[in-house]
Amino acid sequence: MTADLRLGERLMRRLDELARDTDEPGGITRLFLSPAHRAAMTRLRRWMEEAGLEVTEDAIGNLVGRVDNGGADATFILGSHIDSVRDAGRYDGGFGVLSALEVVDALRRAGTRLPFAIEVVAFGDEEGVRFPTTLSGSRALAGTFSPASLSARDPSGLALGEALRGFGCDIAAIAAIARDPAEICGYLESHIEQGPVLEAEGLALGVVTAIAGTSRFNVTLTGEAGHAGTVPMGRRKDALAGAAAMICAVEAQALAAAAVVATVGVIEALPGAINVIPAMARFSLDLRAPTDALRLGAVAAIEARMREIAAERGLGIEIAPLHEAKATACDPTLIEALSQALARQGHPIFQLPSGAGHDAMAMAALCPVVMLFARCEGGISHNPAEAMSVADADAATRVMLDFLVHYEPPARRERRARGAARQVPA
Amino acid sequence: MTADLRLGERLMRRLDELARDTDEPGGITRLFLSPAHRAAMTRLRRWMEEAGLEVTEDAIGNLVGRVDNGGADATFILGSHIDSVRDAGRYDGGFGVLSALEVVDALRRAGTRLPFAIEVVAFGDEEGVRFPTTLSGSRALAGTFSPASLSARDPSGLALGEALRGFGCDIAAIAAIARDPAEICGYLESHIEQGPVLEAEGLALGVVTAIAGTSRFNVTLTGEAGHAGTVPMGRRKDALAGAAAMICAVEAQALAAAAVVATVGVIEALPGAINVIPAMARFSLDLRAPTDALRLGAVAAIEARMREIAAERGLGIEIAPLHEAKATACDPTLIEALSQALARQGHPIFQLPSGAGHDAMAMAALCPVVMLFARCEGGISHNPAEAMSVADADAATRVMLDFLVHYEPPARRERRARGAARQVPA
Repeated sequence: MTADLRLGERLMRRLDELARDTDEPGGITRLFLSPAHRAAMTRLRRWMEEAGLEVTEDAIGNLVGRVDNGGADATFILGSHIDSVRDAGRYDGGFGVLSALEVVDALRRAGTRLPFAIEVVAFGDEEGVRFPTTLSGSRALAGTFSPASLSARDPSGLALGEALRGFGCDIAAIAAIARDPAEICGYLESHIEQGPVLEAEGLALGVVTAIAGTSRFNVTLTGEAGHAGTVPMGRRKDALAGAAAMICAVEAQALAAAAVVATVGVIEALPGAINVIPAMARFSLDLRAPTDALRLGAVAAIEARMREIAAERGLGIEIAPLHEAKATACDPTLIEALSQALARQGHPIFQLPSGAGHDAMAMAALCPVVMLFARCEGGISHNPAEAMSVADADAATRVMLDFLVHYEPPARRERRARGAARQVPA
Repeated sequence: MTADLRLGERLMRRLDELARDTDEPGGITRLFLSPAHRAAMTRLRRWMEEAGLEVTEDAIGNLVGRVDNGGADATFILGSHIDSVRDAGRYDGGFGVLSALEVVDALRRAGTRLPFAIEVVAFGDEEGVRFPTTLSGSRALAGTFSPASLSARDPSGLALGEALRGFGCDIAAIAAIARDPAEICGYLESHIEQGPVLEAEGLALGVVTAIAGTSRFNVTLTGEAGHAGTVPMGRRKDALAGAAAMICAVEAQALAAAAVVATVGVIEALPGAINVIPAMARFSLDLRAPTDALRLGAVAAIEARMREIAAERGLGIEIAPLHEAKATACDPTLIEALSQALARQGHPIFQLPSGAGHDAMAMAALCPVVMLFARCEGGISHNPAEAMSVADADAATRVMLDFLVHYEPPARRERRARGAARQVPA
């Protein structure tokens, strides 16, 4: 069988071209509102226009390409981001935007007019690298952008509001770009998995069920310093030995709870001498789960176990919360529809949660969302070694196309009711 | 009962006086061959002379006070060190020297002439703080001082040999101060415990059975970095989680093996970010035991368990030896004799190993050695908070006195044979 990979081939070629737009030559670094961001938008605008899209650049620096489809009253949004981390790979974000563009261009070439409008959005601020704020573009569309973020400053001291003005954006118009939930019927984001699951399963694609919520803590244990030679084991209050027992407990709890992941990435023992029993130990805890109930249950179990271990060992313990983000569930109807598209395109149906954050989290405040994950090599991301195959890129594009062709927007009345329900504070 | 604490009272007063000889005003820092070391020797020489000792300063900076007892052919040595760590307490070392002086002065006052000579030695280099060498004084007496140590340099670049010359020592005479094993019948060192065992047992004094041997290692684990959110627990090679399991195993092994202590004092995880699974973890291991068989058995068991854990987790492991020191057994006859002195003075007989190093380790190459440990507050040492009671200082001095009064030196022939046996390389 000689596969027809035309969609994937152009997509991969364009991802290579887009990678040339970088703030730091020799790698890929494309920060929000930077010259490289501008260059990428210019390149992308040309490709969008060639695909017959009506292109606008909005007040928050999103590039939006629209196919009106004869004035349909519902709009389906496809997209992802074009900013990057420092020294990034070429697929994180860009793959979602350019695969969406292939889909729209394929529809145009086939002369297919769908019963809803389509927008391809290239968000500018997903990574949150330049300013201490993130998801500005998708939040602005969803109507959840906080004007206070405009005062957030980059390391040079420039405020986000000033940087937006310098980029040509009218910040007074940001509130007005919030979309009407009654008009937006859904959001689909394709993205490389940034994890090893699809590769390990031998699968090209998977449907995302939820974007995990996160809880982060710093844990500080206080014991008693002592001479490594003169204090018998039974008389010690070794803060690091306590931390080790807790790290083992964290791992065991996460292994026992399906779909929960927990990571201790930072650790320190004080005073930190080879012949001194540690009087103090500090470590970080990052815990994620696809539902808030799972996450809060795991946090409670781990916290209880850590307090038990501290009590057993006579150690002081302080568990300081650093950060909390709720989980975002993907829409069951869209999950089902995307799964059926996978099946029609000859793929096994495979569903998985996303442990990393995406623009879909913000878009979920506006409309039903779903994500399509594509296999990447070794699960590597945020790294120049990021890699995916032409075949997988092609397969993802065909599944998205199939999904859109079979998609039926819910009635306007239903969308309006859903939008009202979503605006009730949680 | 009103206790007669005269020996302890003068001893504690003199320890306070000796504490004035410091290189850093406001604390106690008395480095080998420093001005404070010279001042302490001058002070001590006066006290020794008042006690009727014949005082000499030898070629390695030891101060030696001798009571000849009518030309006896056997000499028993009492002593400890007068150098200190930086910001030290006043009892570590000084207690051993000044309690020995009280004993000799009490014998003089009582007109007791023992059938052997007594020397009180104040060693100058036990802590090894100034030069990267240690036990120079006791090694020189034992004939194990290495002339290569004379080139060891302090942080200012001054060599030990030059510093000795500056202190007035004739370094060409160092070899000649090595004592004849046939003439030295024993060595007794009293010292604060520097650990919490006697205090926890409610005891003033204990007889040391052995000075622990030490094995030190650096352990490096290599796993795989990954995104804290996207790599499922079952697919991780988390180097820090592996390190935590190993630290728990180290503790469990040491707890299971009586008298073994094992300490992980230093740890590091790389890259060391809250949201990245550690690709690498490094930690130190310090393991001590009162016999080499116990120590080597525990090291082998821990190493085997660490390699198992690494294999189970797919981690690379490197165990790099840093340092090894053999255990020093105290002499069974002297242990028994000192225990009987404890009992005669109304104390329970309690024996314990020393986890810290002492001059007795070097002296064991010359003659049978034993140590008497005195209770210190909270096991705290190497710290200005070091504390002991007048009653315990007095009790230690009386036990040493009782021990000496009852001590019978072995026949000269026996000492000669023992000396020959000891000189056979191990």
